[in-house]
Amino acid sequence: MNIVLTLRVSGQGLHDVTRDVVRAVEDTGVSDGLVTLFIQHTSASLLIQENYDESAKSDLENWFNRLVPENDGLYTHTVEGPDDMPAHIKSALTSVSVTVPLIEGRLGLGTYQGIFLWEHRHDRGERNIVVHVASDS
Amino acid sequence: MNIVLTLRVSGQGLHDVTRDVVRAVEDTGVSDGLVTLFIQHTSASLLIQENYDESAKSDLENWFNRLVPENDGLYTHTVEGPDDMPAHIKSALTSVSVTVPLIEGRLGLGTYQGIFLWEHRHDRGERNIVVHVASDS
Amino acid sequence: MNIVLTLRVSGQGLHDVTRDVVRAVEDTGVSDGLVTLFIQHTSASLLIQENYDESAKSDLENWFNRLVPENDGLYTHTVEGPDDMPAHIKSALTSVSVTVPLIEGRLGLGTYQGIFLWEHRHDRGERNIVVHVASDS
Repeated sequence: MNIVLTLRVSGQGLHDVTRDVVRAVEDTGVSDGLVTLFIQHTSASLLIQENYDESAKSDLENWFNRLVPENDGLYTHTVEGPDDMPAHIKSALTSVSVTVPLIEGRLGLGTYQGIFLWEHRHDRGERNIVVHVASDS
Repeated sequence: MNIVLTLRVSGQGLHDVTRDVVRAVEDTGVSDGLVTLFIQHTSASLLIQENYDESAKSDLENWFNRLVPENDGLYTHTVEGPDDMPAHIKSALTSVSVTVPLIEGRLGLGTYQGIFLWEHRHDRGERNIVVHVASDS
Repeated sequence: MNIVLTLRVSGQGLHDVTRDVVRAVEDTGVSDGLVTLFIQHTSASLLIQENYDESAKSDLENWFNRLVPENDGLYTHTVEGPDDMPAHIKSALTSVSVTVPLIEGRLGLGTYQGIFLWEHRHDRGERNIVVHVASDS
C-alpha cells in the first residue's frame, strides 16, 4: 500500500527522516517485505547515508555544494532563483526513490545507515514522500 | 508482470518517455501498487526530472557533458568511440532503475516530474526498458 | 523473501557479484517478478555496469577517484582514515539499492550488464547485501 508523508523541512541540507518512515511502516503492520520511498519533487532527493557523525553529513553537503555551485555561467534556467538549477542537478546525481528490505517488522538498514530527505532549495516548506510497503505474505 | 518497451530515440539527450510508460501501465489494468523501470543498457539511463521547462533539461545535459567530457586523457576504453566511456560514467552517476508508486490507476509523480530515458551515445537506435508492475491486491 | 548475502571483497574497486545474486535468486525458485538488492553500508555501493571489457571498469574507478580524491582539504570527517569521506561521497553518487526484473527464471539484465559491489574503502572485509525476491504469482 502507498502512504503519503508530508514533511516540513527547515532549509537546505540533509534531514534525517528515518523515524517518520519507521512509524509509517509500523502502522501498516507488515512484517516482511520491501519498503520503497519516492519523493514527488525535482529539487529535493532521497539518500541513505551515515547517520552517526554530523561531520560526514556536513562534508557531504559541502562537497556537493562545491561540485554544483550556484551562479554557474552555464545555467540558463534561472527564473526560479540561483538555487534552482543546482537543485535539479543534485537531484539527478542522487535519487528520487530508495528501497529498503523489511525484515521481521524492522527496516533492514545497516548499523549506521539513516534515511535522509536532501532538501536542495534554501527556502521550501513541505515535501511529499510516498511510502510503499509490499508484503511478502 | 514485466513488459518490455522498445523505444527509438533520436540521439544524445533526455527523452521524455512518460507517455509510453503510462500506456504500458494502463494496459495492465492494475490500480494500486508499484511501477519499476529497468533499462537494459550501460550507456543510457533513466531519470525522473522536471518536465516543464526545456531550459532545465538542456542545462542538465550541458552540465553533465562538461563534468564528463569526451576525449578525456584518463580514458583507456576508447574502441567504441569518444562518447562511449562518458556514457558509462553518466550512467553510473544516474540510474538504470527507477520506481514510481501507482495510486488509483495513476503514476504517483509530482506535478512537474517526468520520466526520461537519458541517451548518452550520439547515434544509437533502439533501447529496451522493462516495465514491472506490482499490484497491491 | 529477503536473503542476506555476506560477501568478502578484496580491496577497493568494482567486484562482479552477478553469480552470487543469480545463485541466491535461483534458490528461491521464483520464476517471474522483481529482484531488489540493498547494501547495508555507507562506504560501499551497488552498480549495474558493463561487464565485458576490463578497461571500462578501471576507467570508471579512476574517473571516480579523480572526482572524489582522498585528502581533500574540504573534509572534516577524517577520523576513520583518508578513504572514508570519499567512500561516503562515492556511495551518494551511486546507489545503495538496485532493482532488476526477473523473467522466466532469469535476471532481466542486458547483454553486457553485470551487477557490481563497489567497495570504496581500501581495506574492508565482508559486506552484506540483502536480496529481496518478489514473485508475480
